[in-house]
Amino acid sequence: MNLAYKVLQAHLKEGELIPGTPICIGIDQTLTQDSTGTMAYLQLEAMDTGKVAVEKAVAYIDHNMLQTGFENMDDHEFIRSVAKKHGITFSKPGNGVCHQLQLENFSKPGKTLVGSDSHTPTCGAMGMIAIGAGGLDVAVAMATGKYYLQCPSVIQVNLTGKKASWVSAKDIILKILQILSVKGGVNKIVEYTGEGIASLSLTDRATICNMGAELGATTSIFPTDERTLEYLKQQGREEDYVEFKADADAKYDERLDIDLSTLEPMVAKPHSPDAVVAVKELEGMHIHQVVIGSCTNSSFADMMRAAKILKGRKVADHVSLVIAPGSSSILAMLSQNGALADMIHAGARILECGCGPCIGMGQAPLSQGISLRTINRNFKGRSGTNDAGVYLVSPEVAALSAIKGYLSCQFEDDMSLDEVPMTPFIKNQNFFIDEYDPQTEVYMGPNIKPVPRGEKLNDDIQGKVVLKVGDNISTDHIVPSDSKLLPFRSNVPHLAKFAFSKVDDQFYTRAKENHGGFIVGGDNYGQGSSREHAALVPNYLKIRAIFALSFARIHRSNLINNGILPIVIDQKGYDFFNEEDEYVLLNVKESVEKDEPIIVQNVQTKETLSTQLTLAPREKVMILQGGLLNAIKELGGDF
Amino acid sequence: MNLAYKVLQAHLKEGELIPGTPICIGIDQTLTQDSTGTMAYLQLEAMDTGKVAVEKAVAYIDHNMLQTGFENMDDHEFIRSVAKKHGITFSKPGNGVCHQLQLENFSKPGKTLVGSDSHTPTCGAMGMIAIGAGGLDVAVAMATGKYYLQCPSVIQVNLTGKKASWVSAKDIILKILQILSVKGGVNKIVEYTGEGIASLSLTDRATICNMGAELGATTSIFPTDERTLEYLKQQGREEDYVEFKADADAKYDERLDIDLSTLEPMVAKPHSPDAVVAVKELEGMHIHQVVIGSCTNSSFADMMRAAKILKGRKVADHVSLVIAPGSSSILAMLSQNGALADMIHAGARILECGCGPCIGMGQAPLSQGISLRTINRNFKGRSGTNDAGVYLVSPEVAALSAIKGYLSCQFEDDMSLDEVPMTPFIKNQNFFIDEYDPQTEVYMGPNIKPVPRGEKLNDDIQGKVVLKVGDNISTDHIVPSDSKLLPFRSNVPHLAKFAFSKVDDQFYTRAKENHGGFIVGGDNYGQGSSREHAALVPNYLKIRAIFALSFARIHRSNLINNGILPIVIDQKGYDFFNEEDEYVLLNVKESVEKDEPIIVQNVQTKETLSTQLTLAPREKVMILQGGLLNAIKELGGDF
Repeated sequence: MNLAYKVLQAHLKEGELIPGTPICIGIDQTLTQDSTGTMAYLQLEAMDTGKVAVEKAVAYIDHNMLQTGFENMDDHEFIRSVAKKHGITFSKPGNGVCHQLQLENFSKPGKTLVGSDSHTPTCGAMGMIAIGAGGLDVAVAMATGKYYLQCPSVIQVNLTGKKASWVSAKDIILKILQILSVKGGVNKIVEYTGEGIASLSLTDRATICNMGAELGATTSIFPTDERTLEYLKQQGREEDYVEFKADADAKYDERLDIDLSTLEPMVAKPHSPDAVVAVKELEGMHIHQVVIGSCTNSSFADMMRAAKILKGRKVADHVSLVIAPGSSSILAMLSQNGALADMIHAGARILECGCGPCIGMGQAPLSQGISLRTINRNFKGRSGTNDAGVYLVSPEVAALSAIKGYLSCQFEDDMSLDEVPMTPFIKNQNFFIDEYDPQTEVYMGPNIKPVPRGEKLNDDIQGKVVLKVGDNISTDHIVPSDSKLLPFRSNVPHLAKFAFSKVDDQFYTRAKENHGGFIVGGDNYGQGSSREHAALVPNYLKIRAIFALSFARIHRSNLINNGILPIVIDQKGYDFFNEEDEYVLLNVKESVEKDEPIIVQNVQTKETLSTQLTLAPREKVMILQGGLLNAIKELGGDF
Repeated sequence: MNLAYKVLQAHLKEGELIPGTPICIGIDQTLTQDSTGTMAYLQLEAMDTGKVAVEKAVAYIDHNMLQTGFENMDDHEFIRSVAKKHGITFSKPGNGVCHQLQLENFSKPGKTLVGSDSHTPTCGAMGMIAIGAGGLDVAVAMATGKYYLQCPSVIQVNLTGKKASWVSAKDIILKILQILSVKGGVNKIVEYTGEGIASLSLTDRATICNMGAELGATTSIFPTDERTLEYLKQQGREEDYVEFKADADAKYDERLDIDLSTLEPMVAKPHSPDAVVAVKELEGMHIHQVVIGSCTNSSFADMMRAAKILKGRKVADHVSLVIAPGSSSILAMLSQNGALADMIHAGARILECGCGPCIGMGQAPLSQGISLRTINRNFKGRSGTNDAGVYLVSPEVAALSAIKGYLSCQFEDDMSLDEVPMTPFIKNQNFFIDEYDPQTEVYMGPNIKPVPRGEKLNDDIQGKVVLKVGDNISTDHIVPSDSKLLPFRSNVPHLAKFAFSKVDDQFYTRAKENHGGFIVGGDNYGQGSSREHAALVPNYLKIRAIFALSFARIHRSNLINNGILPIVIDQKGYDFFNEEDEYVLLNVKESVEKDEPIIVQNVQTKETLSTQLTLAPREKVMILQGGLLNAIKELGGDF
């Protein structure tokens, strides 16, 4: 048995480990961040349960930390009060990025984790099954200890050889993205094997698992070994170590071999993390900004390597270099060992520990500017500047390029930090708050609006196609996540005004005028972050079905949770639909109930298309009831 | 002769040192920050001059550092290119707050400085005449080396005795604000004398001079002595020391005696820096947020004292403590000596070195939240949260209260840092860029709009009173300065939409509908920051005259620079005006030319009011020409 299935099997509550079939697994840990968490906790509150049913639930604040209006701190206070009421650990703003903190403090081999952030798989580095999910799924996991998903297949990525100096973990995952593309991992777990693993530190592995989210994978996982133990020792929790690995004769559904010795520094070009080429192909490209940080590359080792390159050198006059360490502990350690001063003396701007520029919360580049970033996503506009070009690179390439003033991988010998001096990791616990008082009164600021509820499925659904888009529409397209909108994650009516605004600025008006309708998309519809607002907003706008060539995993779940039909079509089906034409889904309720094809008719031409909506039994209930909250209300939390 | 007049006399170019009369002084140094600087440099560009005419001109970036859209970095790049073209030193974002940096790097006893920021008087601590001015005045100073002002009178503040432990420089200036009020310093220089001075370090004096701006004073000044020399030695520029002090028999226009031994920790209550009471009167008040930083209290010593209080302790669970050191050098030093780690381990959030929360760029409090801050202003809404209450305190009170969770001055013995360990100040020079190339092409981003120009004075001016307001209207009221608007400081048409929005949200509509008109204000109209946008926006909206009981100094200059008549009225005059009534200024052009009273008539009732507009000869030219830029165009830069 492979490692992924070993962990799943040990947690299996319903179903069997057959790829593509619905399963339910027990959940040991949950995490939320504040931008998805506010809504998740509104939903948890709506379920009216007591203390959380998991071993460890943590509510992090790492997204909305600029606080340009009262909304952010109101949300923080709301989350703090809910955490206290339900026995959830609260991580105060300033503590750092959720994935870095979860890894440092709570990750344990063999455990399961669901988190309301698409980069939750980061903890796969610790031999965990760590899955990103919509806020409502995480709320259900907190309330019941259960998580429902489609059983993924497992792809083996076998690492051999040893990487050259200046090749980093980031380059490995960029290479894999180049090969597999942003949809190569859909409904799959990526399991790493092979002798090449031993050369990767735990945080290297975390970088790889983190950015596995860009493959569309359900999660990624590494076995545990001496490097895992080494990390746990540094964290002062050696006792959490357990050896977990695949059986020698483990079976996998697919296999990819990567010889680390053949790799070189890589870069993902705008506007997709799989638009990967070798850095040397773009050597010399003029740059304006460099950002080092985010949940992908903000570990102590990443920071130390960047600091070594910057030490005694000067950031180019025309470059703005910003650095955000991943956690308050890392910031304090860098401070104490002199590396932070080296960065500052080189001319680096030090940002607060948090997600920051990665999610467009500040540090928007120059118009038409070029920004090199160590983050995981470079979707158009995500940086806050719509016409900027964001390139994804390793911390080493980022630091070197900041000095040179152009993209470069021409490292000098004395820039190398052979071994990261791992002084005992000094844990900072004063940002964590553990209180439990079921009598706590929940604080509700004026920006917090009710959760939209779906409608029960009608016999027919009629409406216009209010939008027809192409491939790889991300959740950033559906509900933009910039510094102006992130404070409104608990205010769906406000967010709705900006839905698809980067694709078609008339969408909101059209959807309102037509009282909702349908959306048609291409391949990999809903890729990117886990944000369920990309389903909550369409729900609020009365979008009843989305037709697409394929759906990203988390987004499909979020749509179903919101009672929106995610109907897969082929190219013929894609061509069948015209924007602004009116369609009707005939006898759709009966078709769903009986698992029969759904017939779609063009109201004007009377042409029809036969489509198939494949739903697990539990998903069917949600679609019929008009969403998960309705289903829970009707049938109880454990339906 | 007093010290203030000694420095003025040594720089006098026109006029005589008679209070209330117009003078022109030579300028040695200028500074700009980015929120006022973008406009100042557009104006400098409009003057079409070459290299700056001052010894040292510095362009700082410290306001717009969140960068939530492309506008900020575009402005930074614009300023960098203008700086290069005109031989101005450019301070990159991340270097810190302009006043802290000017003090550390460029302040020199006996020199003159004008800066486009109202807290420019900070450098008065170094025995300088340092004056805050509108951007256009600073642009003229850069181009010509001259600055025109009304000769201030001098108020002597004589300090005796020795302050008790836990009484800080902040408490001294808060006490003075309590006595003199926010208009007590209008058209005055505050000169400090007495034996009490010796107990104040240079940065203590800087705190006092900085917040002298809240008195409405033209500037504040301290003599130079061993403490000055001590500071310059730490900065590695002992050679800049010159002794400057008042003659033993110096004359002053007023005198205030403060016995330091009678002082105790003070706090300014919302929403004015002069609403000062003793901390013990509010001891125990519940708080939500604490902010330590800003140009008032972000020195190395301030930070060290706060760190000592925080060391080994924990910030209260319900409190968010944010700390922003004043400069990159200070941040690096705190890092190297362990104080930064002490802060982080206590649970403090470390923000980038910059103005940040003080100007509402981030860290907006909870709705109806209570925020303790070491900053200089607590005007309503300035924090970003309109219904929050901001209290101004010393760094010591702030740090202690953060731990306690409520306002407190009950210090413990081991919290005291008797002497600040002044390890050699390690200067960080890599954020300063000194380039000079007159051929530089100026970068203009899409957010940069033309400077509005006034109209030549007509014979009659007719219009409605489109707004009538009360006392102490600040530039924050006139043009709000929050995180959403600061990026638009080079886009007056956009800013105009928000003019007076915190006072009357119909103002913009009314001003547009009526094609401008008049505004009536109370006492101390235009107090607060130096932002000339508070005059540029009314200019753009065709406001032709403002009637007020009194005007703040910088704002009055900005109005005249924009061709807007700042007419002083008495209480009878204030009662004469009704909002929405129509008035005409009869033969106003002739009245201005002949220094005769201006007759205002109510168009409906035909009632008249005789008003007096007192203008210096140069001011008269500006009013007749419709502003300084028009005057320069018509008469040349040296008119």
